Amino acid sequence: MLLPIKQNVQVTFNYQVAFTNGLFHPENSLLKDTLCPSPGSKAKLLCIVDEGLIQHNPELLFDIEDYFNSQDNLHSVRSPLLVPGGEAVKNDNKHINEIQRLVHEYGIDRHSFILAIGGGAVIDMVGYAAAVAHRGVRLIRIPTSVLSQNDSAVGVKNGINAYGKKNFLGTFAPPYAVLNDFDFLTTLSDRDWGSGMSEAVKVALLKDPDFFDFLEESADKLRNRDMPAMQNLIYRCAELHLDHIANGGDPFEAGTSRPLDFGHWSAHKLEQLSDYEIRHGEAVAVGLALDVTYAYFTGLVQKKDWVRILDVLRHLGFSLFVPELALGLDEAGKKPAILEGLNEFREHLGGQLTIMLIEGIGKGFETHEMDEYRILQSIRMLREYETSTTISK
Amino acid sequence: MLLPIKQNVQVTFNYQVAFTNGLFHPENSLLKDTLCPSPGSKAKLLCIVDEGLIQHNPELLFDIEDYFNSQDNLHSVRSPLLVPGGEAVKNDNKHINEIQRLVHEYGIDRHSFILAIGGGAVIDMVGYAAAVAHRGVRLIRIPTSVLSQNDSAVGVKNGINAYGKKNFLGTFAPPYAVLNDFDFLTTLSDRDWGSGMSEAVKVALLKDPDFFDFLEESADKLRNRDMPAMQNLIYRCAELHLDHIANGGDPFEAGTSRPLDFGHWSAHKLEQLSDYEIRHGEAVAVGLALDVTYAYFTGLVQKKDWVRILDVLRHLGFSLFVPELALGLDEAGKKPAILEGLNEFREHLGGQLTIMLIEGIGKGFETHEMDEYRILQSIRMLREYETSTTISK
Repeated sequence: MLLPIKQNVQVTFNYQVAFTNGLFHPENSLLKDTLCPSPGSKAKLLCIVDEGLIQHNPELLFDIEDYFNSQDNLHSVRSPLLVPGGEAVKNDNKHINEIQRLVHEYGIDRHSFILAIGGGAVIDMVGYAAAVAHRGVRLIRIPTSVLSQNDSAVGVKNGINAYGKKNFLGTFAPPYAVLNDFDFLTTLSDRDWGSGMSEAVKVALLKDPDFFDFLEESADKLRNRDMPAMQNLIYRCAELHLDHIANGGDPFEAGTSRPLDFGHWSAHKLEQLSDYEIRHGEAVAVGLALDVTYAYFTGLVQKKDWVRILDVLRHLGFSLFVPELALGLDEAGKKPAILEGLNEFREHLGGQLTIMLIEGIGKGFETHEMDEYRILQSIRMLREYETSTTISK
Repeated sequence: MLLPIKQNVQVTFNYQVAFTNGLFHPENSLLKDTLCPSPGSKAKLLCIVDEGLIQHNPELLFDIEDYFNSQDNLHSVRSPLLVPGGEAVKNDNKHINEIQRLVHEYGIDRHSFILAIGGGAVIDMVGYAAAVAHRGVRLIRIPTSVLSQNDSAVGVKNGINAYGKKNFLGTFAPPYAVLNDFDFLTTLSDRDWGSGMSEAVKVALLKDPDFFDFLEESADKLRNRDMPAMQNLIYRCAELHLDHIANGGDPFEAGTSRPLDFGHWSAHKLEQLSDYEIRHGEAVAVGLALDVTYAYFTGLVQKKDWVRILDVLRHLGFSLFVPELALGLDEAGKKPAILEGLNEFREHLGGQLTIMLIEGIGKGFETHEMDEYRILQSIRMLREYETSTTISK
């Protein structure tokens, strides 16, 4: 009788999230120091850039090429590959295949670098392509939107969509480094500037009442593109997010719990129902408003906190109701489409349904069931709130 | 000035490599106990089977279906999907796509199971498909060949081939469990029985002189299909392999060192040059003979040990020379094709060339250069040895 062999594998990943301005300015050494940490070392790299960036900042491509040309120890194998920005880039295999073909063609190896410069969708897609080529080429994430700088690009996930399912294919693969350049934020549209802030509200509600106070005090400034306030928001949000991954006990999400996915069960569904017309950050704001209202109806959250939270979201510029939320709500005998989101969320997590709510500002609360009647009442309440309450939007 | 945030993520993976006979016998509870560890729990699963197995054992499909039908808490979503066996299954994307389509269609989630039953190539391919669907569906590996039971299926890697490069796409993804059923070995051809033993010789040479003594004493028995001897070989080889992954300090191979890839730089190239006519295990035996001869020429290994090692490989049934090893060797001005293997090996690892040799039996030795002249002399020596030495093959 041969006893089973019990295997225990511990893997440690270290990476740095750095903050800068003018990353590709000739005198900024952050990128070079990241790729070539020891004197005399050399780095080979392939650079992928979000086309959306170039439309707003046509000079960027020249800046990037000039930067690499001026650094003897950085070898960029070809001019940056342009890929479309936004969720569409995650819906088409061809970008993944193109990147992997270049990895093959230029002999990019496990110690070479792939640089992903762009919004969250581009970084997700490039990250997946890099993670599976040679079982993992080193990835430098250079996120350029509020949402990716404070949330999606600082974590350990990547992915693309398939079979109509968001992030159906992907891996957990920590990056080699994340370089947040605040200058990219100045070229964002008001919509992209604003929509990235909902993840900060979310993480404040779950973990940090002081951070929520800051968001409340700074909401109007943030909406009016005050850069120091935004830098504080991004830094603290990234910090809370990273702390959760490192110390939350389940960095690669083996369990059924998703402690950072507050407001996300409906957000994912809203994005899908709108054919991704609604941005992730906008959908999260609605999802948060919905679940906070639900928590208020359930007695978890007091009325004054409920009002404060909706008010902060509104002052940041978010709509708290979208028509997709009420699809089928008023048709007799029909189940509102948003409710399917609960089941899809459970399926993506696997196992038992686990939903993160709050029981007060800064206090996450996990539950395994949600009452459909209260969800629908919450939707009706938000519809009413959105049409009746007037603030200086 | 915002300081960089330094992220440290530690991930722990636990899994068990279990040994059994008659895994799908109605009274064997190992599989059920693995999938449903707590009383009353249920498991949903998708089963993928190597066609080669069914050719040798047509009853197996019925046994599998009967097993699942008789277990109320196991829900197999459809009849097992058959895929071709051997390296060919890793060269064609369509198998990956088919598996992922079934994951989508049957709602296989991150807490459901994919069972991969077959040789190393099938397990590599299915493992990759499972690792990236929903960022990782639980994988049960049920390896059926000597090579996969003692080596490839107990570790943390998966992969498929692309652009003519072996394992160009893949991930590091520990399985949920590995179930080694010795009964599968009885249906193997002599070639498959034999070729899997070279990895055991390799790991003995690197780490365990006592294990080498066992292989030397048991070589003829092993070749003549003695089952208890083979069980010992598989158990100890798997144990040494797992110990290396857990305690070698680099389970996901972030560095440039590949301490278990002794004999592999030429083996990979021989497989490719023969269009995968030469099996991996056969190529490794030739690769070991080559690098041991090189180590002897370099003064790392004494003559008596060199003779012992070649002798053990011969008694296990291996050829120590194949024509692909000498391609271009006798043509003036031409560089023998095998030497390209060194550069391809370096590229796959990334960074500096790092080659594992030995300095005596049981003692691995790492070097960063190999002398081409001595490699070519070693090849000539093996050609001569193979044609002149007669043993009772």
